Amino acid sequence: MIVELSVVPVGTSETSVSSYVRAALRVFAEADLDYKVNSMGTCVEGEWDEIFSALKTVHDRLAGMGCHRIVTTVKIDDRRDKRGTMAAKVAAVTEGS
Amino acid sequence: MIVELSVVPVGTSETSVSSYVRAALRVFAEADLDYKVNSMGTCVEGEWDEIFSALKTVHDRLAGMGCHRIVTTVKIDDRRDKRGTMAAKVAAVTEGS
Amino acid sequence: MIVELSVVPVGTSETSVSSYVRAALRVFAEADLDYKVNSMGTCVEGEWDEIFSALKTVHDRLAGMGCHRIVTTVKIDDRRDKRGTMAAKVAAVTEGS
Amino acid sequence: MIVELSVVPVGTSETSVSSYVRAALRVFAEADLDYKVNSMGTCVEGEWDEIFSALKTVHDRLAGMGCHRIVTTVKIDDRRDKRGTMAAKVAAVTEGS
Repeated sequence: MIVELSVVPVGTSETSVSSYVRAALRVFAEADLDYKVNSMGTCVEGEWDEIFSALKTVHDRLAGMGCHRIVTTVKIDDRRDKRGTMAAKVAAVTEGS
Repeated sequence: MIVELSVVPVGTSETSVSSYVRAALRVFAEADLDYKVNSMGTCVEGEWDEIFSALKTVHDRLAGMGCHRIVTTVKIDDRRDKRGTMAAKVAAVTEGS
Repeated sequence: MIVELSVVPVGTSETSVSSYVRAALRVFAEADLDYKVNSMGTCVEGEWDEIFSALKTVHDRLAGMGCHRIVTTVKIDDRRDKRGTMAAKVAAVTEGS
Repeated sequence: MIVELSVVPVGTSETSVSSYVRAALRVFAEADLDYKVNSMGTCVEGEWDEIFSALKTVHDRLAGMGCHRIVTTVKIDDRRDKRGTMAAKVAAVTEGS
């Protein structure tokens, strides 16, 4: 399954959120999840339980860093007819064009 | 915690998705989750594990109905400084105005 | 067309965003757009140009209120086979059930 | 401004959406917009009007290809304190780590 995550801390007094995104990426790395950062979020490849368990850890980690409100957008692509991979999806729309 | 869920089945040959949304709402009701339907999604109030466990059941239920690909958008509002409820959030922006 | 909008100001030093949401709702009202608030966003019914022009005004208005970074999530339901209304969509999944 | 777009045709009878994504990418190229594909969407860098005008063209183009319902998710990062670029945002969270 592929899931895109985009975490926005609210009420942090500064517009930069990169320290929080770095903390999130560390959680994905610790969970041995395959992930790829883009300019608006991070795509993660894995199984349902491991992805959502990691996301819960991300929220707890950010709360520990002082975030009192976290707004996260999650986009799930759950394909049951074949195994979708991040690399194959990008190749399908960019290659041979 | 409040989470908005919007489930879109892909490759179903018809543009109506209401039978799938009804199936999702049954799952939330069975899980005793407080939910409220709007025209673009469903807001659910509850704890992290119960919400995401229900969402996983929704995906399995839709797969059982013949959906081979399910694209879901999830928006999480995780507030740690006070308990946010659906009713209070709507009241905060509409009352007294 | 139905569009759901959810506007999050980043770097505002407080977790409440209701004053900004109220400002956004005033813009929709001024533009004579039909809108309906839910706990995670606002659904707006109208034509493409009037909705996105109103959203641009919302961003400018919030910038004028001191928001230096605005993260907005937009979900568009563009139905070409029939006119979708907010009321009909909610009725389709909740009535008779 | 950076905007991520993710277009999902509903009721197309097949689970693959790559021909529609390719059509969308052609629109961005024709509009001379800087864009970058990821596995869950496409990030586009440009000004408000040119991005949303291109997105409207994408919807019309897909309707012309037979899509009777198009569900699009848009994430806008509108930064007023400095010019955010796609490359700088990715570098801020991945470099030196």
